[in-house]
Amino acid sequence: MQTLRVDLGERSYPIHIGADVLARVELFTPHIAGRQVAIVTNTTVAPLYLQRLLQTLADYQVTPIILADGEVFKTWETLQTIFDALLTARHDRSTTVIALGGGVIGDMAGFAAACYQRGVDFIQVPTTLLSQVDSSVGGKTGINHPLGKNMVGAFYQPKAVLIDTSSLTTLPARELSAGMAEVIKYGLICDAPFLDWLERHMPALLALDPKALTEVIEHSCAAKARVVKADERETGVRATLNLGHTFGHAIETHMGYGVWLHGEAVAAGTVMALEMSRRLGWLTCAERDRGIRLLQSAGLPVVPPTSMSVADFRNHMAVDKKVLAGRLRLVLLTQMGAAVVTGDFPEEILEATLATDYRALVAQLNEQ
Amino acid sequence: MQTLRVDLGERSYPIHIGADVLARVELFTPHIAGRQVAIVTNTTVAPLYLQRLLQTLADYQVTPIILADGEVFKTWETLQTIFDALLTARHDRSTTVIALGGGVIGDMAGFAAACYQRGVDFIQVPTTLLSQVDSSVGGKTGINHPLGKNMVGAFYQPKAVLIDTSSLTTLPARELSAGMAEVIKYGLICDAPFLDWLERHMPALLALDPKALTEVIEHSCAAKARVVKADERETGVRATLNLGHTFGHAIETHMGYGVWLHGEAVAAGTVMALEMSRRLGWLTCAERDRGIRLLQSAGLPVVPPTSMSVADFRNHMAVDKKVLAGRLRLVLLTQMGAAVVTGDFPEEILEATLATDYRALVAQLNEQ
Repeated sequence: MQTLRVDLGERSYPIHIGADVLARVELFTPHIAGRQVAIVTNTTVAPLYLQRLLQTLADYQVTPIILADGEVFKTWETLQTIFDALLTARHDRSTTVIALGGGVIGDMAGFAAACYQRGVDFIQVPTTLLSQVDSSVGGKTGINHPLGKNMVGAFYQPKAVLIDTSSLTTLPARELSAGMAEVIKYGLICDAPFLDWLERHMPALLALDPKALTEVIEHSCAAKARVVKADERETGVRATLNLGHTFGHAIETHMGYGVWLHGEAVAAGTVMALEMSRRLGWLTCAERDRGIRLLQSAGLPVVPPTSMSVADFRNHMAVDKKVLAGRLRLVLLTQMGAAVVTGDFPEEILEATLATDYRALVAQLNEQ
Repeated sequence: MQTLRVDLGERSYPIHIGADVLARVELFTPHIAGRQVAIVTNTTVAPLYLQRLLQTLADYQVTPIILADGEVFKTWETLQTIFDALLTARHDRSTTVIALGGGVIGDMAGFAAACYQRGVDFIQVPTTLLSQVDSSVGGKTGINHPLGKNMVGAFYQPKAVLIDTSSLTTLPARELSAGMAEVIKYGLICDAPFLDWLERHMPALLALDPKALTEVIEHSCAAKARVVKADERETGVRATLNLGHTFGHAIETHMGYGVWLHGEAVAAGTVMALEMSRRLGWLTCAERDRGIRLLQSAGLPVVPPTSMSVADFRNHMAVDKKVLAGRLRLVLLTQMGAAVVTGDFPEEILEATLATDYRALVAQLNEQ
């Protein structure tokens, strides 16, 4: 087992990564203050892993809370069912909420923990690649609003992140790929050598090679922990973790939550960020294409939905959380492995980026 | 003008108390980071004070958000209308939310600010006595759940508390009295000499004597600020501020939010806490009666609803936020001016307290 630490003063916590984490009660007990535990999971994950976790926590008074599966349910209504269950089972302030599932479960269980009786403890047990490499670390929690993704939420750190790598064996291929979008992100924004590594190991990763998977999770969590330590509440460098997310959130919101997986929308959004960085003269065509090819090799979509117009993008992007004083700010690459968050770009470059025919661009690339 | 300070390290903030605070833009500007401001108020307060505040903030881009008035609207649905308005007017992370109203508005606007885009700045402008002496200071925000009061919320400190004492001139007498319940609370839990002062000045306070009111607000805010500094997240002494609240919340929840004003329920709940402290041998009958008489002199109800059974109280109190490990904890007085939070009392004393005929007790008292 590997152990990392997210260093945030009195809010510091460990990340344990290993093949049998779900069965090891001694990883849970240091982070459970009382006798009450609520496991928040969904209808897909519960049949796979809930019994195992219930066995591990047999000595506690456990309330399982099983939600419908999908981004479309990341709403206040679903959150309310968590509060209903906690209050009906009379969970008090000493309770611990455990998020057992992917990013949606982690976001909602974490936000429920942040708000229940003004805050109770919670533990992240991410079961998807995306949540293991990204969303379970750093304390971002929240729900969607019809007008914008993750618009209501809290910065609220877990007491621990417990990553059972064996849970990836049951993950659908499409979701494995979706997680790779966030993995590739780390290489693009802050770690060029990691891009080389990913290019070499992508086949092994998609074949679920345990050694490669553990390495990619550890490497990604370490990158995330460094950034979160430097900027917990996203007033600066943390925003670079949102590479491709402003374009991607517009895709998710426009298409309807859950039609595109988050990682898929981020992949297409990252292609747009690569193209815009290229148009600004910060990347060469070859560098942009290298990024696109890596995303493609992970089985990710690299063309935004053709049904979305420039106006559609602009409309959704206007409520992005990075907008400041009416000015849209974007995460862009100044070179491969280095990112900035900036609102200082010519308007016509953004316009041209939104108007680019990505289908043609990618077709041309694939012919080379 | 009087200025106090809530001392919480990097989350410290000032409390300004004066007769013309609403008109003084220089008290607002240091706490508004961007150009966008949202004023959250209600249908009762808006006709009285919204225009004045809009004039004061004429240089900002202001979105007024006017909610229905009353505890019954302290719900997620109402909160959602705040998010809708903020998103529709495209408020970004640099926006500032101003709560203009009583405790319900402060709780909801504060919770909305805590959650909007994972947290934006907010300013409390309390217009009722209850919110000026208690709820606007200390960062407790939240909404009610059908199964329990304030069960969903956050500890989230304002950037400033701006108290315009002249707003009390338009406050209904019933609400002025409700605020006195929280004022009397400070005397009972930590400040016996203040009880003497209140007994002498209650007529002047109810007659809205400006000097007496300013003094009572300043004294109460100073007491609150001290307690919050010592225990921001209520792991200890802060819970004593909930004297009468466990019984009181049961009354509010049982009767339906808004039927009894919060301060009225706290007053009746305080009588129950006085009686239980007397039954434990910690107060004399004369001390209990002194507390009851002071609450009565403020125009407050001192008899819990006769329609509530012992079982009704027990049922609602089981979900109180002070319950720990299944054990109900109560704020009780060890003497006049000193309180404890304890679950260590004989069960039959609580039972007898709940079963007491308060109507008879008070009738007898008033005959003396």
